[in-house]
Amino acid sequence: MNNELITKGQAAKKAARILAKLDTATKNKALATIADTIIEHESLILTANQQDLEAGRANGLSEAMLDRLLLTSPRLQTIAHDVRAVINLPDPIGEEFESRRLPNNLRISKRRIPIGVIGVIYESRPNVTIDISVLCLKSSNVAILRGGKESIYSNKALAETIQAGLQTAGLPADCVQLIESTDRALVKEMLRANGLIDMIIPRGGAALHKFAIENATVPVITGGMGICHLVVDQTADLSKVLPVTVNAKVQRPSVCNALDTLLVHQAVAAEILPQVAEALAPYKVELRCEPRALAILQNQPFVRAAGETDFDTEFLSLVMAVKVVDDMAEAIDHIYLHGSSHTDAIMTEDYGAAQQFVDEVNSAVVMVNASLRFNDGGQFGLGAEVAISTQPLHARGPMGLQELTTYKWVVLGNGQVRG
Amino acid sequence: MNNELITKGQAAKKAARILAKLDTATKNKALATIADTIIEHESLILTANQQDLEAGRANGLSEAMLDRLLLTSPRLQTIAHDVRAVINLPDPIGEEFESRRLPNNLRISKRRIPIGVIGVIYESRPNVTIDISVLCLKSSNVAILRGGKESIYSNKALAETIQAGLQTAGLPADCVQLIESTDRALVKEMLRANGLIDMIIPRGGAALHKFAIENATVPVITGGMGICHLVVDQTADLSKVLPVTVNAKVQRPSVCNALDTLLVHQAVAAEILPQVAEALAPYKVELRCEPRALAILQNQPFVRAAGETDFDTEFLSLVMAVKVVDDMAEAIDHIYLHGSSHTDAIMTEDYGAAQQFVDEVNSAVVMVNASLRFNDGGQFGLGAEVAISTQPLHARGPMGLQELTTYKWVVLGNGQVRG
Repeated sequence: MNNELITKGQAAKKAARILAKLDTATKNKALATIADTIIEHESLILTANQQDLEAGRANGLSEAMLDRLLLTSPRLQTIAHDVRAVINLPDPIGEEFESRRLPNNLRISKRRIPIGVIGVIYESRPNVTIDISVLCLKSSNVAILRGGKESIYSNKALAETIQAGLQTAGLPADCVQLIESTDRALVKEMLRANGLIDMIIPRGGAALHKFAIENATVPVITGGMGICHLVVDQTADLSKVLPVTVNAKVQRPSVCNALDTLLVHQAVAAEILPQVAEALAPYKVELRCEPRALAILQNQPFVRAAGETDFDTEFLSLVMAVKVVDDMAEAIDHIYLHGSSHTDAIMTEDYGAAQQFVDEVNSAVVMVNASLRFNDGGQFGLGAEVAISTQPLHARGPMGLQELTTYKWVVLGNGQVRG
Repeated sequence: MNNELITKGQAAKKAARILAKLDTATKNKALATIADTIIEHESLILTANQQDLEAGRANGLSEAMLDRLLLTSPRLQTIAHDVRAVINLPDPIGEEFESRRLPNNLRISKRRIPIGVIGVIYESRPNVTIDISVLCLKSSNVAILRGGKESIYSNKALAETIQAGLQTAGLPADCVQLIESTDRALVKEMLRANGLIDMIIPRGGAALHKFAIENATVPVITGGMGICHLVVDQTADLSKVLPVTVNAKVQRPSVCNALDTLLVHQAVAAEILPQVAEALAPYKVELRCEPRALAILQNQPFVRAAGETDFDTEFLSLVMAVKVVDDMAEAIDHIYLHGSSHTDAIMTEDYGAAQQFVDEVNSAVVMVNASLRFNDGGQFGLGAEVAISTQPLHARGPMGLQELTTYKWVVLGNGQVRG
């Protein structure tokens, strides 16, 4: 195994024992110090960021990519503000739940504890370095970070800033560690670093998640890809359908909870589809339609026939697949066959249809009469979001601080023995 | 991939959709039918079991192994009784929790749903075939079972019995499936059957768990190995220490929650250790002692010097490692370095020592003044036990029906869009 990974992993394990014992006030003080240090280190961070931007330009990164890389004084102010916001979030560690007294008078409960060392593998945006570090700190987990090669200088400066903040607050700098090697082979080694890393969160596209699933021996939280559906039932209220469809598709088309596929009940398709197309036309949303939908929409702008893969695609752009379905059963079957268990919603005014949809669709987030865009830790009131999980184990949907914890059973007795 | 695994995996996925929709009464009726069918099929099952026993004798299995394989009429009565007991357990599916109303009037909650298809890889005892099947059924999960080669005839007869019971109750036989191939390569294929199996539970020794961690791409619940500690603090009450130590060590020494290592505070070691040795002597428990403990116990029977690996060994037999520690910090460090996060306990009458131990030891189950043997789903009031997990994710400690579930977020709106 790579020496940097071994050294940092062992230091992480040591720091995790210290971090697990800290009280909330100490962690909050460190968060405040980190926020202050980010402001103090502004010129150091922005200078490092310039190095990444120059390298990025030299390597021909797109303007959109360069913008994701860019740090500015106002962006650092926002980042520091977000760090301070974490101070006000409730500390999940130490909460006891499912407490009970057994017939033999043993008292048992589950108590939330940190997971330990969390490895995070991410791509270009350097603000993730701060986000993840402070959420791990608040939940008493050590973070081992492996960012993208294109943001390495920024990430180093940010990690040093966090470590300086930790030390000023009297905590070990090892609570947050950045892997500085940009060797691609190291990603696979992180995924197999059992004994040093307790959980891996990949933050990136479908290819990274696939790589993680195929190679990880450390437990990994997968998700990230959303092929998200909106079903328009025959009883749907058009005055809700149009704003929800537009919001779900265009409010931020590049993210995983944006709408990909619209499924419309055949009884209302002829009435509703043209109005949906008209509502989306100002945003130039391209509609890729199966034959029945195409027959209705063929005279609209931005309409074309759907290709073979369009109903299995996360568009991340102003494109939407459209299909007319015979009934609710066909809609639910379509989601089962083509969905990615991320976010799926129905528009309906029918009690039974709403119940059936919520009962039978088992995506991480299932909605009735609401925009898919609400699938978000902040929107759900979790205060923060580490990732959105679409896998069945440990956590599903938006993951906040609580989802960065595990539990131990505490059993308090008075000399009881088993008969 | 092996054809049997593909065929059964695809059938399992179909059955999982049906099972996820069943109400509790229907599942309970099927459980009752399965219990009846076990009794009806007695001669068929016992005949098959005889085939396994004969093959086992021919292959030189030990008497203990043969006894684990053996099914008898009374044992089948007990198994049928245990199936009926599952009828009375609460159904975890459908429960809503962490419900709240957001400021924009969206109602959100988490709702428990089945995991889907659960693969179980186990060794000789054929009763596991029934146990796991009915717990999966009650929690609306499909089970794909892969038992040991030595119990293949019994397992086939039991799986056919369950499937007959399922069909009599009007449920798909595919809800429980047995892999009949005894090819060892198939275990690895099961561990990598993403898309067909949603979670794997290995039930066996350390070697099986290690193999699962190293090879699985499907999420796997690991545990099984317990190097379990009992710390005797300087304030421990001897009238509790002796019965708890004896119970933890001898009540069932072959299981994972049996005591392996006794750590005694140096202030009371000279007083307590001889009495512990005396209490264990009638059971012929061999004490493997580090030098300080050996100096105290050297004249007792069944005492010898500890070898290099004794403090890192799960004995599963009437052997116990013994060590004198300077203080609580040394005891906690020893557990951190040598433990397996399974079950660790302290005997103390000191409030601060109890708090410190519970705060700083992060094993799956941490106890004060109680026998380690209570780490058990039945004892904890979970009604049943699928496995004991020592890993951090998804579930820790004894896993009951609730731990065979995941959740989806349900969001109920009235046309809300994100601003």
